[in-house]
Amino acid sequence: MNWLIENVAYFDGIHNTCMERGYVLVRDGKIEALGAGEAPLCDASYERIDGKDRLLLPGFINTHGHAAMSLLRGYADDLPLHTWLKDLIWPAEAVLSPDDIELGTELAMLEMLETGTTTFTDMYADMDRVANATIRAGMRAVLGRGLIGFDDVNLEKLAESESFVRMYEGAGEGLIHTTFAPHAPYTCPPDYLKHVITRSQQLAVPLQIHIAETAKEVADSYSEYGKSPVELLYETGLFECQIIGAHCVHLTDRDIELMAEHHVHVAHNPGSNLKLGSGIAPLRKLLEQNIVVGLGTDGAASNNKLDLYEELRLVALLHKGVEQDATAIDAFSALRLVTNEGAKTLFLDPMLGTLQPGAPADFQFIDISGPRYYPRHNLLSHIVYSSHGGDVTDVFVAGKPLFRKREHLTLDKEKVFYNVKRVVQKFPLSQRVNV
Amino acid sequence: MNWLIENVAYFDGIHNTCMERGYVLVRDGKIEALGAGEAPLCDASYERIDGKDRLLLPGFINTHGHAAMSLLRGYADDLPLHTWLKDLIWPAEAVLSPDDIELGTELAMLEMLETGTTTFTDMYADMDRVANATIRAGMRAVLGRGLIGFDDVNLEKLAESESFVRMYEGAGEGLIHTTFAPHAPYTCPPDYLKHVITRSQQLAVPLQIHIAETAKEVADSYSEYGKSPVELLYETGLFECQIIGAHCVHLTDRDIELMAEHHVHVAHNPGSNLKLGSGIAPLRKLLEQNIVVGLGTDGAASNNKLDLYEELRLVALLHKGVEQDATAIDAFSALRLVTNEGAKTLFLDPMLGTLQPGAPADFQFIDISGPRYYPRHNLLSHIVYSSHGGDVTDVFVAGKPLFRKREHLTLDKEKVFYNVKRVVQKFPLSQRVNV
Repeated sequence: MNWLIENVAYFDGIHNTCMERGYVLVRDGKIEALGAGEAPLCDASYERIDGKDRLLLPGFINTHGHAAMSLLRGYADDLPLHTWLKDLIWPAEAVLSPDDIELGTELAMLEMLETGTTTFTDMYADMDRVANATIRAGMRAVLGRGLIGFDDVNLEKLAESESFVRMYEGAGEGLIHTTFAPHAPYTCPPDYLKHVITRSQQLAVPLQIHIAETAKEVADSYSEYGKSPVELLYETGLFECQIIGAHCVHLTDRDIELMAEHHVHVAHNPGSNLKLGSGIAPLRKLLEQNIVVGLGTDGAASNNKLDLYEELRLVALLHKGVEQDATAIDAFSALRLVTNEGAKTLFLDPMLGTLQPGAPADFQFIDISGPRYYPRHNLLSHIVYSSHGGDVTDVFVAGKPLFRKREHLTLDKEKVFYNVKRVVQKFPLSQRVNV
Repeated sequence: MNWLIENVAYFDGIHNTCMERGYVLVRDGKIEALGAGEAPLCDASYERIDGKDRLLLPGFINTHGHAAMSLLRGYADDLPLHTWLKDLIWPAEAVLSPDDIELGTELAMLEMLETGTTTFTDMYADMDRVANATIRAGMRAVLGRGLIGFDDVNLEKLAESESFVRMYEGAGEGLIHTTFAPHAPYTCPPDYLKHVITRSQQLAVPLQIHIAETAKEVADSYSEYGKSPVELLYETGLFECQIIGAHCVHLTDRDIELMAEHHVHVAHNPGSNLKLGSGIAPLRKLLEQNIVVGLGTDGAASNNKLDLYEELRLVALLHKGVEQDATAIDAFSALRLVTNEGAKTLFLDPMLGTLQPGAPADFQFIDISGPRYYPRHNLLSHIVYSSHGGDVTDVFVAGKPLFRKREHLTLDKEKVFYNVKRVVQKFPLSQRVNV
């Protein structure tokens, strides 16, 4: 289906301003043309959309998460990281079946689509089930089977990872991208990582990994190896691959130098890092070194939402306060992190996250008719500082509508909720209020 | 009108949990009764509301702001504080007429009501116009005419303030509360403040003032007076009044001691403090000293929204990250700041911000039917971490509906937007995208 969107304000992801009133043409899953004023004449294959009271912008790109953990939203909050993980999250995850993981991924996609996300990143188990659910939903995704390298079954899991990459890379008419996904340097010792590096290079797919999320992880790395996690990964040869490093909260200047030199990309998760008490990543230093940075929500157990409008606003506010400098990051730079820079972070089509002829037609509409969008001194500023995820009315991926007039077209919301209520009964903890 | 709300989940503002399914009775503007399960029989004076898919909670209380500055939303962003204020905000404010201030207040109230706020605080000019607009809208408010003490007209403004207090305290059937509102120690020298203190004590109304918002203000205070702003205010005698201190970002331990000893209340504005690069207030230290703290949005020029759901989530996340401790503030404590502790901060009815028999019937409903509210492991956690302002469907103040099924009942939204578009044409800067 082709689309003629007219009478619409838009942000193209490239310029530091919004078009007040223009048109966008979508043909065969890509942006065909866009501009100010009236649309050109189009043939009958184009369906018209009136953009009155709407602003069109690129779909958001979530560069780090664990979708199925949406089943653990609100299950364990306000606890120290290790209590949270060992006493609550891991025991709950231990009871999740492949069916549950597929269901949790659907719950996550419902939320992500409703809040304007068109591409997400996942690191979890049962990736074939995740991939199949994603293909049915029609989202774009970067998927990797999470790997932990302590015990004997790990080379099996690595083989499973490899099969996953071979089977799913480019699936879903090109919407599915694959990665290897070793969990972290503290759960994947160097010898194990070397196996992963070899596979990642052979299959030419990126490698996603958690790096320096907590101060404890860094301290432990110095104790065990006499070096920082970043130095350890570098020396292990990891930076010869395409790396998506999640978190990167606790970094030395030397770490940042190494990452910049080797083009390590960073998935910055401000909400999760705050909520778990991990700290605040040195975003400005990363950007000053021209490190490619995208935004991520992390899993819903540590956020507790998968709404990139929250991360967008948070990233634009947080670093100004921490640096005590209102110029630390401007609205446009923040918005780029969640659009085109997000695509670059994930090593995807460099036009993804923009609206320009030839770019994948992944976009969203937000309703700008409410008081938070008045006066219209600066629409771009309103997207960043005044919006919320509930403003999203429509979401398209590769030119296909997945969420229209606030209704899901590819996911059965009621069925997901019904099954979620059933599944959570089996979690070890019974602090549920109202399942 | 009396209300029988049944089949509803609720948070009562007092207990660290949500009722799954219960009822709330509202009679003559106050909560009459509430409890689990089925409602008792009621006579025909009660209108029934079915709370299916809704959660009822106290209306939020905004303890600091400048409502009319909503006209400056997005007018000047990402700039150093002094450029922002002197080159952009003050010149724009200079062209605002009393009509404009009334209009800006209406725009702000539209947004506040839509996002569940029932009580707001204001410090600005033309307070009689603000008060009249507030009475028409039906909101509860704590209002004070902003005072600056540098030039000769200041005693006139103080007299104007005094008339305002005499005329409006208790107006709007008790919904309007008044204060004196000297701007800050750096704009109101001690001799001037002493006049304000005397008036505040004579008329027995609180005094709201900005305190220690920026590091520069504190450094200047040491240069000029050899002491911190808090010490200066204390020595000037200000703390003999009921004080609502806005911001309180840069405090010494001695400052906090003085504030605790003299029961100074704090309006914490995390979003504004981040956005202007002011810094991060020491919330945990304040709470450890039993200082009463509420949350505020500040004006829309420095936030840029007036949505306490944002401040709620932000306060619950931010301090965990800054302190690198996930237990720094829990969801319940955060929710208390924006409800009952907010009421206490403003020296209002100590039952305001709770649902209990006899409490003012200021409450809101949120729609909990979406994916962000699943699974229902912990509804209280979802209010804090998973909600957004767009979830609010209905808002009542003193038992009167002001916003029902997402429609305003007391404010004319289209008229406000029409006038806002007209008024902003006269602002000095023409960087507007789409007025």
